[in-house]
Amino acid sequence: MAGDRRPAGARTSPTERRILAAAVHLFAEHGFDGTSVQQIVERAQITKGGLYHYFGSKQDLLQEIYQSLISRQLQDLERILAAGLDPPATVRAVIEALVISTAEHIDEAKVFARELNRLDPARLAAVRAERRRYHTAFRDLIERGQREGVFSRVAPADTVTLIVFGMVNEMPRWYRADGPKPASRFAAEVADFVLTALRPR
Amino acid sequence: MAGDRRPAGARTSPTERRILAAAVHLFAEHGFDGTSVQQIVERAQITKGGLYHYFGSKQDLLQEIYQSLISRQLQDLERILAAGLDPPATVRAVIEALVISTAEHIDEAKVFARELNRLDPARLAAVRAERRRYHTAFRDLIERGQREGVFSRVAPADTVTLIVFGMVNEMPRWYRADGPKPASRFAAEVADFVLTALRPR
Repeated sequence: MAGDRRPAGARTSPTERRILAAAVHLFAEHGFDGTSVQQIVERAQITKGGLYHYFGSKQDLLQEIYQSLISRQLQDLERILAAGLDPPATVRAVIEALVISTAEHIDEAKVFARELNRLDPARLAAVRAERRRYHTAFRDLIERGQREGVFSRVAPADTVTLIVFGMVNEMPRWYRADGPKPASRFAAEVADFVLTALRPR
Repeated sequence: MAGDRRPAGARTSPTERRILAAAVHLFAEHGFDGTSVQQIVERAQITKGGLYHYFGSKQDLLQEIYQSLISRQLQDLERILAAGLDPPATVRAVIEALVISTAEHIDEAKVFARELNRLDPARLAAVRAERRRYHTAFRDLIERGQREGVFSRVAPADTVTLIVFGMVNEMPRWYRADGPKPASRFAAEVADFVLTALRPR
């Protein structure tokens, strides 16, 4: 089965966080296959026994990286949906939260984009189910706006969702924290673009 | 240096095409590192000597896959730009050509998305330069439309480009040739969405 089942955010001890930070850095730099447990242990300044006390395997680390990124983004989403704003304000808040949190965790996002297929089937299914929850919630939001007439039917809600998540998932390819444009500005531009396309005629 | 320098389309002998098709299939299925030259040789029904007569290494095959995909898309782009349509019709034609050719070569696109960082630095630089040419041409097209007032300045041309290419580059994650929606329909929806966002107020 899918290994560790503690919810994201449960990895709160300083040691666990140090191990995860080391793993994210090394996976982003050298790939999952190109990183050994020994390298993680050295970077995190811990013993192998210490690592295995917290994580059963390299696969556990990889899943924890995905799980914590997705869980954080799902929590943001639920918080925004619970605020009960109108659909345009909700879509703007969701896009901005997603772009900014991806920028803030760009190494995790890079590992996610490149190494997802290194997970074993059960773990992969668990991660994909979480991601699907996020996509479905976003698509439902667009669909509701289209039904209520606050969004145009310029494109089906599914297609709008693929456009938004395509852009976000590609951020690891080009986003640099020290680049010319802060993530918040880019996020606002994307939200403007999407909301303009969706504006009723 | 970057190995084979023949332009894409030069790989036209049936044997070369059979080798490339076998490599694309295996790389898409098992990854670059997970595929041996022996497996390619068996699938292409050729001898190792035969393969090495045409391709110097597995890296050569990987680069050829990228090069031919990008070159094909650059040729489409140049043909569309040469037609001298107005910016909206040009943007529509470019998006449709890009989405449809990505769908038609989805295994190549999948290898491209996952395995680009397996190329050695010189080959990687060559592939990236080609991709940048495509991005720059598209961005210039949006910018020209914005300057001429046929497109709104809803978002900078760079951001519009990242949105469009983000969506296209993510297609290998979700596009299925036997899915419910033909690529041409999806392409038209994306073009509608982008052109609606860019419509002057």
